[in-house]
Formats: sequence, C-alpha cells, structure tokens
Amino acid sequence: MHSRPQAVLQKDLQALLALLRDQIATSALHQRAREFTPYLGSGKMLRARLALRLGAANGVRPAVRHAAAAAVELIHAASLLHDDVIDGGLIRRGIPTFWKAYGTSGAILLGDLILFKAMHLIHATGQLPLLAEFIELSGVVCEAEAEQELIRRNKPPTWQQAVQIARRKTGALFACAAVTAGRNAAQKNALREAGYLVGTAYQIADDILDGSCNEHKAGKTLGTDHARGKTTAAVRSPAAARRHLASLSRNSTKLLNPWPRLQQAWQAYLDEDFLPVIHALLGD
Amino acid sequence: MHSRPQAVLQKDLQALLALLRDQIATSALHQRAREFTPYLGSGKMLRARLALRLGAANGVRPAVRHAAAAAVELIHAASLLHDDVIDGGLIRRGIPTFWKAYGTSGAILLGDLILFKAMHLIHATGQLPLLAEFIELSGVVCEAEAEQELIRRNKPPTWQQAVQIARRKTGALFACAAVTAGRNAAQKNALREAGYLVGTAYQIADDILDGSCNEHKAGKTLGTDHARGKTTAAVRSPAAARRHLASLSRNSTKLLNPWPRLQQAWQAYLDEDFLPVIHALLGD
Repeated sequence: MHSRPQAVLQKDLQALLALLRDQIATSALHQRAREFTPYLGSGKMLRARLALRLGAANGVRPAVRHAAAAAVELIHAASLLHDDVIDGGLIRRGIPTFWKAYGTSGAILLGDLILFKAMHLIHATGQLPLLAEFIELSGVVCEAEAEQELIRRNKPPTWQQAVQIARRKTGALFACAAVTAGRNAAQKNALREAGYLVGTAYQIADDILDGSCNEHKAGKTLGTDHARGKTTAAVRSPAAARRHLASLSRNSTKLLNPWPRLQQAWQAYLDEDFLPVIHALLGD
Repeated sequence: MHSRPQAVLQKDLQALLALLRDQIATSALHQRAREFTPYLGSGKMLRARLALRLGAANGVRPAVRHAAAAAVELIHAASLLHDDVIDGGLIRRGIPTFWKAYGTSGAILLGDLILFKAMHLIHATGQLPLLAEFIELSGVVCEAEAEQELIRRNKPPTWQQAVQIARRKTGALFACAAVTAGRNAAQKNALREAGYLVGTAYQIADDILDGSCNEHKAGKTLGTDHARGKTTAAVRSPAAARRHLASLSRNSTKLLNPWPRLQQAWQAYLDEDFLPVIHALLGD
C-alpha cells in the first residue's frame, strides 16, 4: 500500500507523462515520437520527481507543479539530444540515440524546439517569477557546457574546477526543479541551493560511472568524457568523490531546517528517489 | 546630413552593438569572441533595424527597443550557428563558420546559450507580454526548422508548402521584431502580421539566391538547400517568386493604414533597409 505522498506522486507522474506526450503530439513531428521516447519520460525523472514531491508537500497547485516538472524534463531532454550529438553517443536508455536514427541536424533542431516548449509551459502557468528562474538557471547550464567545451577541454582540471563545472552544468537544473516548490524568497533560496547540492552530487556520480566504463549498467555509451578531454570529477579517486557526494546530500537536507514539512519531503525524495539511483550508478 | 529618424537609428545601432558585445564579455567565452563576430552585429541586422525604427517611431523606451533588437539578433545568431552545423556551411560573412573553427559541439552549445541570453534580456525589461511573444514566435521558428528537417526532407514541396515553411521559419522572427513596437493589441496584431509578410519575402529571396549559387555575392556557402533536399521557394521560377515577394512587401505596408506614423516608419524601413538588401540579393 502507498503512503499518501507516494499516491500523490504516482498521480502526478501520470499527469506529467500525459503533458510530455502532448508537447509533440500536436505537430507534424509526432511521426518521430518513437525515437524521441528515450529522451522524454522514460528515464529516472529525478528532476521532475524533485519538483513534484516538494511542490505537493508545500501546497503548490497541481497544474503549476506538473508544468514545472514537465519543463525541467524538456530542458533535460534538449540537453541530452544535443549532448548525444556532441559526445557521439550511440545508445541512450538502451536504444539508438536520436541523431543516430535521424541525423545530427534533426537532433539539434528538435532540442532547440523543446527548449521553447518548456518556456511556453512555464509562461502559461502565469507564474512569472518562475519563468525568470527557468531562464536564469537554464542559462547557467548552457554557459557551463559551452565553457567546458570551448575553453576547458584538454586542460587537466583541479578537483575544485571539476566540482564547479558539475554544479553549474547539472546542479543548476536540479536547482530549477527545487525552486519551483518555494512559496517565498527564503524558501526559494534554500530550495535552489539544496537543488544545486544534490545536482552536483548526481554529476559527480555520473562522472565516476563514465570513468568506470560499465555500459551495461549505464544503458548508454560511456568513456566519452575522458575521450573528449572534458572537465569531470573523475580526476579524484572514486572513494574521495563518494565521500564528497555524501556530504553534499547531507548538507542539502540541513538547508531546509526552518521548514519541517519541506525537509521531510526532501528527505523522502533523497531516500526513495535520489539515493537509490546514486547507489545503483555506483554499483553499491 | 541625416534626417531625425536616421540619427536616432544610428544612435540605436551603436547602443545595440554595445549590448550584443556585453553578452559574452562577462564569461570565460569572451576568448572566442573573434570567431563569433560574423554571427553577431556584423550582418545586415534587418530584424534589429525593424525593431529599432518602428519602436522609435511609436515611442517605445530606448532601453526596451534596444533589448528587443538585441534579443532578435541573438536568436537569429543562435539559428545561424546551428544552421551552419546542419548545412555544413564553411563560410559566413566572408570568414570561416564557428563550427569550422571550433567544432560542431562548441557551435551547438554557444547557440543554446545565446537563446537564453536573449530571453534574459527581454525578461529584464519587465515587459512580460513581450516575453510571451518571444517564446511563442521563437517556438514557431524552431518547429518549422525541425519539421523541414525531420518530416519534409527530400519530398518535392508544392509552392504553397514552400511559402508556409518560409513564413514560419523566417517570417516568425521578423514578426517578433515588429511586434515589439506595438503599444496595444490592434497595433501588435498588425505589426506581427506585417513582420510575417516581409520575413517570408526575405526567405523567398534567400531561397532564390541559394538556387543561383553566387557565393561571392552571398558571402556564405550556397547550394546547400538543394543538396540537402530542403523545402524552399526555389521550386518556382525566379520571376514568379519575385512577383510574390513584391506583393508581400506591398501588403505589409497596407496593414498599418490605421496608424500613419507607424506606416511611415514601416515604409522608411522597407525603402532604406529591407528592399536594398533584397535587390542586392537578387542582383537587381
């Protein structure tokens, strides 16, 4: 039997999947929906779950938390579409990557399109401060990725540089998911930073996995970071990286001390969604 | 000696260039600014000039019209960065394309980044209905480009399909530039549609040029549309395409009949900025 928050989450996830399907169902592009599936709503949806769980716990209206969750998943999908072109990845969630099936051009253009679909969903909620967060934090992701590619490539990074890149390129979108649940400035600041911390932890785990080259576990092409000279956390020993990762997730919870209900939802997210994925990635 | 509107336009263009330079000056990416120059503020700036001339004529505050003009140029630059990757173009405005200098990955990521810089500029003006127009109309551009690539490629288009693609993929961003000058719903609707018409005309001229293969005149790699099986207006004879183009630009002016000052500014834009470029493209 599900607890009440679990039941709400399951219902929210159904609504989210319907919303995601709607995004391409209305255009001529629905003909390409099958090959797009691995990018949208078939992954672990860690960012969407964050927005949904915390939003539900904090009384954010269903329509707003569904739109917020769909928008973070769309932005994430756009970045996967473009990253697969960039890294030359052949497999995503067990099936051929979109560029492999339809060419790099289609993958680039579809990625661009769904960025605007995400912005549209948020604008349509009427929550304009939320739209500002999405624009700002998505910009942080893009700037970090462009910097990693155009400036830092093939320069051995320090651990600190690697963590900073992880924070900006992955943490910022978790921050975006988390901030959607805030009802006032203090909550938003705490949630945004807590999101940054767990997102950084996620990227560090992903960097360790990429360094390990276990493609069966990952369901995607690995070893591409090292091959392309990217700035990643694989610079430090896996054991030290794991310790840092654990402290990031502990610290994220502490930030929500002033709001017990939010903190409880955050802890449930970590225990039931986030940490099981991290442990699976790391082979614990 | 310059007329008063010309003097205002020259001052606006200076402010615009400064704003465009600022967008990458603050990040580590300024190291790549030289190769980015052909994409930003060194072209004909037809979209920016439209926003600036009409905005000035209709009393739109300088800060708002500069931000609007910069945002349309940024979105246009993002689409050029991505299009050069897609078309495999080697030369842009006389120098090597960004992907040729720094690889496709850098070009994709820099394009993504400046889309969000554009959204940020508009959000920062506080003009939220304008932000909605940018999200909506940029989405139209992306959807048309994705459809052209993923659905229509290598299917001989009818003339009507070719004009519809031109309207959506190029007209929508001219519509976005034009609508920024509207002060009420009626003006916005007329300006948006007038922008759609001249943008469609511009794309038809560009399609004719691509079919003509005069690279010296174009300053870019040509013949790529045909080689890639794209849906373009080159399907019709150049003479018939020219007649359609001329009627689009006449009709755009008529839409502004209710507002003589706007209409005068529109006609000045056509005579001094738009039509000279079109005639040069067509070798008249």
